[in-house]
Amino acid sequence: MYRSHTCGELRLSDAHKQVFLSGWVQTLRDKGNILWIDLRDRYGITQLVAEENAVSPELWQTLRSVGREYVLQISGTVIARYAKNPQIPTGDIEIRVQEANILNPALTPPFTIEDQTDGGEELRMKYRYLDLRRTPLRENLILRHKVALAVRQYLDAQNFLEIETPYLIKSTPEGARDFVVPSRMNAGEFYALPQSPQMFKQVLMVSGYDKYFQIVRCFRDEDLRADRQPEFTQIDCEMSFVNQEDILQTFEGMIKQVFKQTKGIDLPSPFPRITYQEAMEKYGSDKPDMRFDMTFVDFTSLAKQKDFVLAQQAEAVLGIVVPNAATFTRKQLDELTLFVQKPQIGAKGLIYIRYEAENQVKSSVDKFYTQEDLAHWLKTSGAQVGDLILVLMGDLHKVRKQLNELRLHVADLQGIRNPESYKPVWVLDFPLLEWDEDTQRHHAVHHPFTSPKPEDFHLLDTNPLAVRANAYDLAMNGLELGGGSIRIHDAQLQAKIFELLGFTAEEAEAQFGFLMKAFAYGAPPHGGIAFGLDRLTATLGGSDSIRDFIAFPKNNKGKDTMIDAPSALKNEQLQELSLSVLKK
Amino acid sequence: MYRSHTCGELRLSDAHKQVFLSGWVQTLRDKGNILWIDLRDRYGITQLVAEENAVSPELWQTLRSVGREYVLQISGTVIARYAKNPQIPTGDIEIRVQEANILNPALTPPFTIEDQTDGGEELRMKYRYLDLRRTPLRENLILRHKVALAVRQYLDAQNFLEIETPYLIKSTPEGARDFVVPSRMNAGEFYALPQSPQMFKQVLMVSGYDKYFQIVRCFRDEDLRADRQPEFTQIDCEMSFVNQEDILQTFEGMIKQVFKQTKGIDLPSPFPRITYQEAMEKYGSDKPDMRFDMTFVDFTSLAKQKDFVLAQQAEAVLGIVVPNAATFTRKQLDELTLFVQKPQIGAKGLIYIRYEAENQVKSSVDKFYTQEDLAHWLKTSGAQVGDLILVLMGDLHKVRKQLNELRLHVADLQGIRNPESYKPVWVLDFPLLEWDEDTQRHHAVHHPFTSPKPEDFHLLDTNPLAVRANAYDLAMNGLELGGGSIRIHDAQLQAKIFELLGFTAEEAEAQFGFLMKAFAYGAPPHGGIAFGLDRLTATLGGSDSIRDFIAFPKNNKGKDTMIDAPSALKNEQLQELSLSVLKK
Repeated sequence: MYRSHTCGELRLSDAHKQVFLSGWVQTLRDKGNILWIDLRDRYGITQLVAEENAVSPELWQTLRSVGREYVLQISGTVIARYAKNPQIPTGDIEIRVQEANILNPALTPPFTIEDQTDGGEELRMKYRYLDLRRTPLRENLILRHKVALAVRQYLDAQNFLEIETPYLIKSTPEGARDFVVPSRMNAGEFYALPQSPQMFKQVLMVSGYDKYFQIVRCFRDEDLRADRQPEFTQIDCEMSFVNQEDILQTFEGMIKQVFKQTKGIDLPSPFPRITYQEAMEKYGSDKPDMRFDMTFVDFTSLAKQKDFVLAQQAEAVLGIVVPNAATFTRKQLDELTLFVQKPQIGAKGLIYIRYEAENQVKSSVDKFYTQEDLAHWLKTSGAQVGDLILVLMGDLHKVRKQLNELRLHVADLQGIRNPESYKPVWVLDFPLLEWDEDTQRHHAVHHPFTSPKPEDFHLLDTNPLAVRANAYDLAMNGLELGGGSIRIHDAQLQAKIFELLGFTAEEAEAQFGFLMKAFAYGAPPHGGIAFGLDRLTATLGGSDSIRDFIAFPKNNKGKDTMIDAPSALKNEQLQELSLSVLKK
Repeated sequence: MYRSHTCGELRLSDAHKQVFLSGWVQTLRDKGNILWIDLRDRYGITQLVAEENAVSPELWQTLRSVGREYVLQISGTVIARYAKNPQIPTGDIEIRVQEANILNPALTPPFTIEDQTDGGEELRMKYRYLDLRRTPLRENLILRHKVALAVRQYLDAQNFLEIETPYLIKSTPEGARDFVVPSRMNAGEFYALPQSPQMFKQVLMVSGYDKYFQIVRCFRDEDLRADRQPEFTQIDCEMSFVNQEDILQTFEGMIKQVFKQTKGIDLPSPFPRITYQEAMEKYGSDKPDMRFDMTFVDFTSLAKQKDFVLAQQAEAVLGIVVPNAATFTRKQLDELTLFVQKPQIGAKGLIYIRYEAENQVKSSVDKFYTQEDLAHWLKTSGAQVGDLILVLMGDLHKVRKQLNELRLHVADLQGIRNPESYKPVWVLDFPLLEWDEDTQRHHAVHHPFTSPKPEDFHLLDTNPLAVRANAYDLAMNGLELGGGSIRIHDAQLQAKIFELLGFTAEEAEAQFGFLMKAFAYGAPPHGGIAFGLDRLTATLGGSDSIRDFIAFPKNNKGKDTMIDAPSALKNEQLQELSLSVLKK
């Protein structure tokens, strides 16, 4: 028997028990004739103690010889601790060691196995197995396990079936790039790894599986950003004979249960809802952070009343009121200006209006606007004495994006984006289509199977970009947790949408043929939603980086530096696959 | 609202209720002035009724116009049925239709959507979405969902964590062929899809996650047999600080709970255990079917007592006693002979001994053995009057394989392989190594990390093929449900095994380097097991074919004919991946 208890288990009530423990040496404190070892496993840390006079010379030697991260097995007696440690649950006891067995020695780790480690990102990725020993990462993975289980329990109780769909599927050029897999048995042909099981879950609806879900890996061959991974996990769901409201209710219930069950958090009931239109007007984002206000104020008409050229040329002049920020120094304001001028944000400049006191307003546009003018701005915005107004101007679409970034940045500066506050919001009525300048055609905002809202059918021919879809996202704290739509189940409507999207009948057949064919054999009304498990878990864990919630993530170049993947193949392997690598 | 109830839900106690139902038209029986429709969904079938006199002409017309598999929504009143149908749970009621709405028409399916369909295998694969509407397949997928959930519930309760490991990993030439995935961002380099998460789960043990599991897709690019799929699902498990007994206990508990929870079946407790050695001697198989006896009898020394050349030349003469089969006709015996002579079996011939009555024995070797000789055979084998002895001879290894096939075949003929009887057995003490004639070197029977039994360490140098491993399989009804081993955690022993397997230090480094490196930082004693979810579910479903327990399987050429995968890529895609396809 390697252990009778874990290292997180023993309490004062276990005193005098004879126990076996196994674990890793966290620390050794050797005082010459007495030593303490902190022994660690997944469950906690237990202190071991030995005195030279009380143990055999061999045991003393063994204990003194262990180093950090050695794997050690001991037996001994639980005793009350003289100097208790209230920081850890086992802090009232220690183990008087009677036998010890080094199960494995360990090289000295290249960084400390502590909550705050001294290891850099790259080193920790290469030695991910050591990084995973640290408590924060362990807690993240435990949370992820709990989230997935809570999802499964909730959906099973709601009569959903988890059905596995294939990973070796067919490449479709639509959307992001596919990862592909050469077929040895079918020379020159390739499978693709799924970007999502979208078509399979719709096929399952045709097959009559009216409540489907799957926690499933998805793959996208994109150029990676900090919060993207080439493989990621989705909670993928679809239902038949439902309308949008059924889906919102079902999955609002799921998210609430996940938060309650894994973290004891009660989310608001019901979740607030706003339209896409309103989200863009008030927050400049389809995933607004609702933990704080600072909603957008439209100063366009006020700004255009005077002969300020930039304002005259601007499509939109939008601002936010930052409470109690009239005291921002010139330096702070300059930093905000530099922030919005960063290439990723791309604003030309930033206008500020400080409401310092009654009838005392200072602004960066005093040249153009009188105190009386500015009094109108204050009134329009509802600013109070002591507030600061920040204003951006230019193209409407761009200003919204820029002001959204500024709003989040200022909130960060003010410390009002509390990671332990959770504010869900359903964003509804997304537009069905967007215009793509590059290809000069309409693109589906969600995907080509998304159904338009019936009340907007009449706009399909006259003003397709104004057509709203039965599409919805769940946002939380400025991040998108999930999204979905009611699908088209009518063949004629689907044909019309394909036409709007610029697909010829042949293109539609090549890409979606098997699904269209399946639909011809009796498709029920259906719709669905998918949540990013990585993102959901990270949000629950109070982090906006998903990487620490994935056991073995890839780096920004798509590499796993621990296993050194990807790597070159042997020539024989390439030949078997009928492939050759092009020299560049 | 599309439905107030499902089609499997209404009972006599619901009579007079106003309900909405949606589903697929299973059948329409039109008697001229009255018609019945069987409406089907995932939950069952409900009969609808309408009389021409009692409904509007429009409704009558709508109802008469529906065809098989139309998607129909109706509202109506639940009424008691005149001619009840005791075959189905809703058989006491029907719905008097008041409104009907064809949600979608349907083409006529190319085969019947019935338990016994008229569709051939190929047609059903191409129209898998229709095949999946059939009750047997639906029940299989529901069973699969329940099995996976039961596994997760059991392991969660035992403190296991489900941890997702990556799908884009590194190709290692050991074992079966990998499927590979070209990396666009790293031109000329490839990921591999995992054959199993073996190395990752061992890394997780090094990281201190002492109880890991994952229900995970695995990939093997093998030439396919009927019961193999290029992608398959494993219940993959690993534990630290355990010995073999801990693992057997833990997973025996899991299998018992799965059988109990999903099918109400109580498996024997504890599961019987036999050694690999005994399994080979008695059953000629490491996955013996324990539902019936007919264990092997060794006639070698008896057979060699006479001048029968084939017996003299044979390494082994083995037989089975078939109870009450002395009445087998000459034709039946000839068919058995043809069976063992099939190329897949490969025996030269079959000897039979009919124990027809006391002192009346007829055999196919009467030329060589007297009645007295044969009396010894009967005694050795424990045959009773009325029994039939079937004997094969030749090379020990081959005879065992052949006689195993014959034993299973005869049991099939006798109908004693009851698919609803479940006989688990642990097979222990597998050999560590086998000799591979092709490569003229030792291969690991399980895998290169499997630990030898300590009591056999001394044989590693002198007689490596006699070394037994801490490796175990769980077999049931002649199939392998799972298998695993205690791993080596000692670096020196691992180096020795690599040497025995003929790896140079460089080869071992290239293939297993990152794992060996991880081990150097403190590897705990650990071991694990993996079960095939497809196989486990099929066995529970009383089938030995896994294909009907996978929603979207591939055919024997690795193709998905529904979606037409694999398929050719566009040239631009290949160029982005720096690849070209070789012409053959």
